[in-house]
Formats: sequence, structure tokens, C-alpha cells
Amino acid sequence: MRHVSKPLVQDPSQQSTLQLSVPDKFFTLETTDGAARAGTVRTAHGDIQTPVFMPVGTQGAVKALEHRSLEELDAQIILSNTYHLYLRPGTTVLREMGGLHSFMNWKRPILTDSGGFQVFSLRELRTMNEQGVTFRSHIDGSKHLFTPENVVDMQRAIGSDIMMVLDECTPYPVEHDVAKKSMEQTVRWAQRAQDQHRAVEPLYGFPQYHFGIGQGSVYRDLRTECAKMLVDMDFDGHAIGGLAVGEDASLMYDMIEVSNTVWPVSKPRYLMGVGTPENILRAIERGVDMFDCVMPTRNARNGTIFTTKGRVNIKNARWKGEEEALDPGLDAWASQNVSMAYLRHLFHAGEILGLMFATMQNVALYLWLARTARQNIINGTYASWSRETIEQLNAVRS
Amino acid sequence: MRHVSKPLVQDPSQQSTLQLSVPDKFFTLETTDGAARAGTVRTAHGDIQTPVFMPVGTQGAVKALEHRSLEELDAQIILSNTYHLYLRPGTTVLREMGGLHSFMNWKRPILTDSGGFQVFSLRELRTMNEQGVTFRSHIDGSKHLFTPENVVDMQRAIGSDIMMVLDECTPYPVEHDVAKKSMEQTVRWAQRAQDQHRAVEPLYGFPQYHFGIGQGSVYRDLRTECAKMLVDMDFDGHAIGGLAVGEDASLMYDMIEVSNTVWPVSKPRYLMGVGTPENILRAIERGVDMFDCVMPTRNARNGTIFTTKGRVNIKNARWKGEEEALDPGLDAWASQNVSMAYLRHLFHAGEILGLMFATMQNVALYLWLARTARQNIINGTYASWSRETIEQLNAVRS
Repeated sequence: MRHVSKPLVQDPSQQSTLQLSVPDKFFTLETTDGAARAGTVRTAHGDIQTPVFMPVGTQGAVKALEHRSLEELDAQIILSNTYHLYLRPGTTVLREMGGLHSFMNWKRPILTDSGGFQVFSLRELRTMNEQGVTFRSHIDGSKHLFTPENVVDMQRAIGSDIMMVLDECTPYPVEHDVAKKSMEQTVRWAQRAQDQHRAVEPLYGFPQYHFGIGQGSVYRDLRTECAKMLVDMDFDGHAIGGLAVGEDASLMYDMIEVSNTVWPVSKPRYLMGVGTPENILRAIERGVDMFDCVMPTRNARNGTIFTTKGRVNIKNARWKGEEEALDPGLDAWASQNVSMAYLRHLFHAGEILGLMFATMQNVALYLWLARTARQNIINGTYASWSRETIEQLNAVRS
Repeated sequence: MRHVSKPLVQDPSQQSTLQLSVPDKFFTLETTDGAARAGTVRTAHGDIQTPVFMPVGTQGAVKALEHRSLEELDAQIILSNTYHLYLRPGTTVLREMGGLHSFMNWKRPILTDSGGFQVFSLRELRTMNEQGVTFRSHIDGSKHLFTPENVVDMQRAIGSDIMMVLDECTPYPVEHDVAKKSMEQTVRWAQRAQDQHRAVEPLYGFPQYHFGIGQGSVYRDLRTECAKMLVDMDFDGHAIGGLAVGEDASLMYDMIEVSNTVWPVSKPRYLMGVGTPENILRAIERGVDMFDCVMPTRNARNGTIFTTKGRVNIKNARWKGEEEALDPGLDAWASQNVSMAYLRHLFHAGEILGLMFATMQNVALYLWLARTARQNIINGTYASWSRETIEQLNAVRS
């Protein structure tokens, strides 16, 4: 087993705490502030201080952002996707190259989603039964079968530090009885995935942790039931899936609370695919530890810039001659060295460099958000800090 | 006048030579090897060691390459374009922002082409007379007039370290009498541009040098006549324009030789928009000092990678599982840390990161080429080195 220690520590005073922690324990809950939690997730590729935001690198690349920039911005872990990597470059190439870390030349941790969400998004192209889900590739129309077992095998080939089970993503809105059947399918698949995870060894000599995914749409009883059954399967961590699919934010927060009542405090909790800075802070407040979302990267490419003083549409005429830097309070190069006027020009001129700088700023903001949330949990100031921060970040600057 | 010294010196033994040079001299010819020359161009934003390749940042941005990467790769100067910058962001914004260096936040030298080439490429959209050239914007169809005088004024607003005159770009192929008339127009415009350059002060407190552009298509007598008339106007440097437009390479080399017979040795010589690595090495052999070309950046985005061992089409199946780094001999991050297999994947997956890494490699190669040419001129080994290098770089790797 390789031990790659993470060189950057936010606060030198934390260093001793980290070194005192038991090294073979996957998750350590270090402190709480209300329901909000600060902890450490340990993997062979380095430690992850939670709450954490994971930039999305669906196809083995965070869109428009170099590896070096991710490290510089202190991204502790990135997320990639089994569905996409299975189709391209394929598990044969990934095995030949010694797994995704080696293929990408990315040295820090990687979490892979199972691809359940992507497969179930292919409405026209897929059929499901007890065994698994058959679908046609969005790339070439070729036919493929995903089962709970082979999705574990694929993630063995990828060599991610944290693997996700194949789940059925319940559509929204949905009746209670349909949601119940779907959730029960997810639970049966979770058990098969866990059996496979136990039966088959990792390929690259380091442990790969395995998370279950809770479903149950917006029904409290189903979320609770699902969570309880997953807890019995002894996963390394628990995810909350099927949210931010169109429901009111209040319902989403409700489902998070219900789930976190069941998940044991000793294991990390991951809210999948969510969301705005406010969504993230309100979920942290309710005890979530891990996040991923395409919002910072995708919105960057549309010209929506998240700053510590609010949201900016960089294409607006308002920024035409504006010399102010994007976000002088953040330490990313683009935040300090790119003016509003220059970024606006790059967008209007259709320059790739604009997408690169906007992405750098937005990812820096999301990473800052999770890092600063952690610091405020440790300081016992989370409630007041998050209230102020939500107000600042929700402002629309125009 | 600001003096910003260039911190990076290729060879520590050269440092004393640089410090001994007269600081107020724009160009110093340091040594020759056959007709090949090594020199230093001095500007307010730093010294430029020649031969030099200038990465192209047409719209105030080198496509898909960060400022920091350019500095890291030791780009000594970049090129931008008056036509594009005049249309967008416009000279009003550039003046407000204190010029292009400040707008871009680029601290090293900038050369701006006049936009003549771009305007004359708009066949359908422009009309020309003695006064200047009227054209319609490729962006919004609006009507504009470029004259030798206002193109100088625009470059004052841009604040480039080296400005180019407005020239008429003779089409190719062309009859001798048409080429002659076109060349004479270019010469009359050059005199008006030079008068304007002398009449109007820089806006930002540092000197802006001014280059004339030789035309004359592929006719030796016209190239000679044009060059002689431009020499009399006492420009700071001389450019060879209107080549690499479809003529045989041997004709191009011939026109370079003819022109360089006339240009005084005491001033830098710039071959505009050329070309392949071989073109550049053969032009250096004939006494050219400065180059720009979109080839490294544009070809990168098409998946053509220039390496020190030859050219690669990265999309080919050949590279599917190839762990070899792009070009371990170069010191760019992508050259050493990105495998052929990963770059191929990024191209097939349509990831912007693929364009970024390919661009980094190709620009690194072109900068390495000019830098190593200089070293071999200084060592007196240019002929044998360039012969071997042309052979290596022309190889197609498949």
C-alpha cells in the first residue's frame, strides 16, 4: 500500500491533530458545531479534510483546469465517472496504464461515481431489470449492460480511492409506490455490490473504499428505511442520491436531515451532485461532509462567475472597462491577476483562455467555501459565518 | 521610461555580455555563424534574445495558454493584432485600461501586427485607395477605415513595444506589374506611417519601436527595390511580409536572402507568419532574427503535436495505450507529465484540457527551437545542428 501524504495543511496548528489520528482508520470525526462536522478521510493517495468539495472530472479531466492548478487551489480529491471512463478510454486501456491515477498522472485521491445517474438519464436508450440496466452508448450507440457487480469490477480497473454502488436513480416527481419499488431495487443492488466488493481484491495494491447510496425521492419514510438497510451492509461511507433533481430546496434539506439521523456519525456522508454555495452551506449545517457539483465548472464556461462578493455575469456591458480583479480575496492566480474587463473581453472574443480563467476562479471559490466552512466549524462559529456568507455569495453583482 | 529587466538568462556566461551592452540601443548583434545571427532586442518590458519565436495572441490572448505558462516556457515576447484589438475590445477600453500590457496583465514585450494582412484577407468586405483601406468588420459588418496614420494611432493606444506599419498584402500568385504597384503603395504608406510615428508621442511613457514591412511578392527586383526604399526611412527594424502564402519554399528562401542583402545588419529582421520548424531554421540560416506563426497553437488544437522526435497525430489509434510522455526532452509540464495515451483520450473526449496540453507542448517546442538555434549560433555549430534538427523534427511518428 502506497502512502502519499498530503503536503498542504491549511493551519499549522492542525498538523499535530492529524499526525495523532490512527492512520488505518478511514474516517475520523474531529469536531462538531451544531450538526456541522469537521473530520478527516484517509486514503492511500492522501488525507482529505472535511467538509470537502470535489471538483468534477467526469472523463478523467476537470474541464479547462490543469492538474497543477487543482493542486495549487488545494483540491484534495477529484470526482470522475465510471460510465464515461468505461466507454472511453475503456477499462482495457485503464488496466494497461495502471489505473486512472497513473493514466491522468493525478497523485491525489479520486472518487468515482458508479454511472447510475448517467445511465438512468439515457431515457430512450436503456432498459432495466433485476439483473441490471442495459443501455446504448451516447458515443456510438453500442449496447452495454451495467450490473452492481460489473460496476464494482470497472471501478477496480479505474482504481479510484472511493467507489460508489450502482443505484437506480428514481425520476422526479414520482408517486410513493414507484419510489418505494425503486428504492428497494437500489437496496438489493447495494447488497450485491457490497458482496462483489468483498469478493474481489483491488488491482493496484491500495484499498478502495465503498459507499452506499440512499434513495427514496422526497419521502421521509423511504429515505429512513433505505438508510437503515444500507447501514446494515457496513459500507465505508454513505451518500445521499437523487436530490437536486427539481424538488424545492426545503424538501432537499428535509431529506438530508432524515438521512443523517440514520447514518452513523462515524462514517462520512456525501451529498451527490449538489449544488449552489448556499445549498452546500445548508447541507454542511445538517451534517454532510462531502460534495461534488458541475456548477462551478459548467457555469464558468457560460460566463457565470462566483465571487466572495456575489455572482457576476461576466458578459455584461457593466464590466467593459472594469479594472477590478475577479476576486482579490482568493489566492488563485486568475482571482488576483485577471480583471473583470479582460475576462469579459476573452468571453466576447471566444477565447479558450476565458474558460480557463473563469473555471479557475469558480473552483477556487468552491474550494475556499468548504475549507472556510471547516475552519468555522473548528472555531465554533459556523452558524453566524454561514449566514453572512450565504448572503454575500447570493448577491447578484451588476 | 521604465526598464524592466528580463530575469531569465539562458546561459549564465551570457549575462555579463548583456550587462555590458549599451542600454539605450534597441538592437545589438552579438555574434554570427555564417549568415545566422544572435542578438538582443531591448524594450521597456525586457530584453529579447534572438533568434526569437513570438507566440501569437491575436486577440490579446495566446489561445489555450495561460500567461504563467508562457513565462514558464520562457516566451520572451508575444504578438497581438491591431485589427482584432481595434474591433474588440476597442481602443477606448484599451486606453482606459492603460494599454494592452495592463489590460492583459502581461509584463513582457508585445509586438503588434498592423492588421494589414487581416484586412486584405477580407476579400469581399474591403475597398482600397491611396488614402487607406475601407472594410467591414467580420464581427458585426460595421464599416471602418484603416490608414497608415490611424493604424499608428491605434498601436499607440495598444501600447505595444514594437509596432508594424500598415502594408498592402499583395495576393499570390500575381503578375509583376500588379506586384510592383502594390509594393509601391506599401512604400508610400510606410513613409506616412513613419511620419505619424515621429509626430505622435507614446501614451504610456515607454518607447514603441516601429518596423517597416517589405513586399514585392516573389520578384527579386521588387523585393530589393522595396527594401532599399524602406531602409531610407530609418525604421527600427525590418520585416519580410507576404510570404508563405502558397509559393514554393525555395522561392520564399530566395526572397529572404534578397531582402537580407539589403537590410542593414544593425537592425533586427522579422519574417512574418512563418512557418514550420524547418522554415524557421532555414530562415535563421539566412539571417532572420524574429518569427511568429499560428502553426504551433492552431495545429495543437487540431491534434498535431510537434515533438523533438517528430510530428504526431495524437488522435491515431497508435497512441491508445502509449505511456510515453509527450516529449521528455522539453521542460514544459505537459511535455514531461502527460502521456500520449492520456492526451489522445482528452482529444477523443473533446476535453479543453487536451487543447491546453497540446498547445503547451507545441509552444514549448517552438520556443526551444529558437533558443537552441541561438545557442548553436553562439557555439558556431549552427549548420550541423540545424541539419540534424530539421531531419528529426520532420519525421512523422506513427
